[in-house]
Amino acid sequence: MPDLRPLVSLEHGSSGVIEARKGRAIPVGKGQSLKLINTHGKQVIDFFAFALDSTLKPLPPTELVYLSMQHTRSGNMRISPRSGDKLYSNHRKTMFEIVESTSPGGHDTLVPACDAERYRQLGVQEHHASCAENLHTALEEAGYPFPHQLTPAPLNLWMNVPVQEGGALAFAEPVSQEGDYVVLKAEVNCLVVCSACPQDVTPVNGYGQEPSDCHFEIY
Amino acid sequence: MPDLRPLVSLEHGSSGVIEARKGRAIPVGKGQSLKLINTHGKQVIDFFAFALDSTLKPLPPTELVYLSMQHTRSGNMRISPRSGDKLYSNHRKTMFEIVESTSPGGHDTLVPACDAERYRQLGVQEHHASCAENLHTALEEAGYPFPHQLTPAPLNLWMNVPVQEGGALAFAEPVSQEGDYVVLKAEVNCLVVCSACPQDVTPVNGYGQEPSDCHFEIY
Repeated sequence: MPDLRPLVSLEHGSSGVIEARKGRAIPVGKGQSLKLINTHGKQVIDFFAFALDSTLKPLPPTELVYLSMQHTRSGNMRISPRSGDKLYSNHRKTMFEIVESTSPGGHDTLVPACDAERYRQLGVQEHHASCAENLHTALEEAGYPFPHQLTPAPLNLWMNVPVQEGGALAFAEPVSQEGDYVVLKAEVNCLVVCSACPQDVTPVNGYGQEPSDCHFEIY
Repeated sequence: MPDLRPLVSLEHGSSGVIEARKGRAIPVGKGQSLKLINTHGKQVIDFFAFALDSTLKPLPPTELVYLSMQHTRSGNMRISPRSGDKLYSNHRKTMFEIVESTSPGGHDTLVPACDAERYRQLGVQEHHASCAENLHTALEEAGYPFPHQLTPAPLNLWMNVPVQEGGALAFAEPVSQEGDYVVLKAEVNCLVVCSACPQDVTPVNGYGQEPSDCHFEIY
């Protein structure tokens, strides 16, 4: 049983960077809003969240509560959640409300975080950073005891996965622009992990673009 | 660490019933085909699968490999897999090929297994059987050490979740008919769990119909 230390939630007015190709754990208290900013316009953030108890301690591994895309789709009866929708946990409870999303495009709930195997299948020979690795590194550094072999489905902010006739999917460039942002209001204490997706083989982060930094604010 | 006993895969020619509202664990060997039959026509089966090693022992909890809907959508670039498509694990490896699916309708990958909370939210006061409970009961009885608090997204066979304009979802009656079947060829040894969905509050299993038995064959 790991030592479950309390995490310190960030003060109102805090802000920071989510570096290109990297993950960052961001504790968010109940009632706080997290503003995620697509600083350069085409960067996808893989967004994960894990519940903390009332003293900001991680829940024990036997009582894991985390953001779940299957329950978010079912809770909103929509593939891609939009302003006013809720983000739901694996227990069907609200974790966040999407207060605002300025991009005319949506956010993807259908495809998994990139991982080492994804890059191998794309022909990359050497090590390549991935959202799955970023997630587990960030959780480990934060002391959150999530089973290393599991990677929940992320909310892929600004990721553009058009659903075509007959349910066919595609990977397209984001339609978001510089400065587009999403505001998520937390309804529970939680540890958020954001990964500025390191994908540079497919156009997930824009044609001919390198992964770029994003920024966040808490208020 | 639980005792990881080998499971016995079923012989070619075996067959059986998946009772209405109940779950059943079915070990399937690499190369075997599992035929799932919608005996009465409108019954949804929540389908889960968990890898076994070459001696048919469960993988240890730190190396969980299980059927993943997010990776199945991404692997086929399609929301609903069809004949000829593969079903992928959380490691992006093939677990099954869909050899045949006779229903003109598809199979759902978008919504979660029903669970106790789902029925509470639908206004059911007393205990109600659920696919999540059926899954965990079946795994426990089979001796498969899957963490009880996790319920992977199921492949909801014959479940009709139309995707409408703008990505809105609905729950509709299955379009499958008596005797429709799906044949899944296993590319790895695995433990399948099928739950004949106990949903009787929404039209998931047909308007005005009670959940009904389904059947399976191994060959």
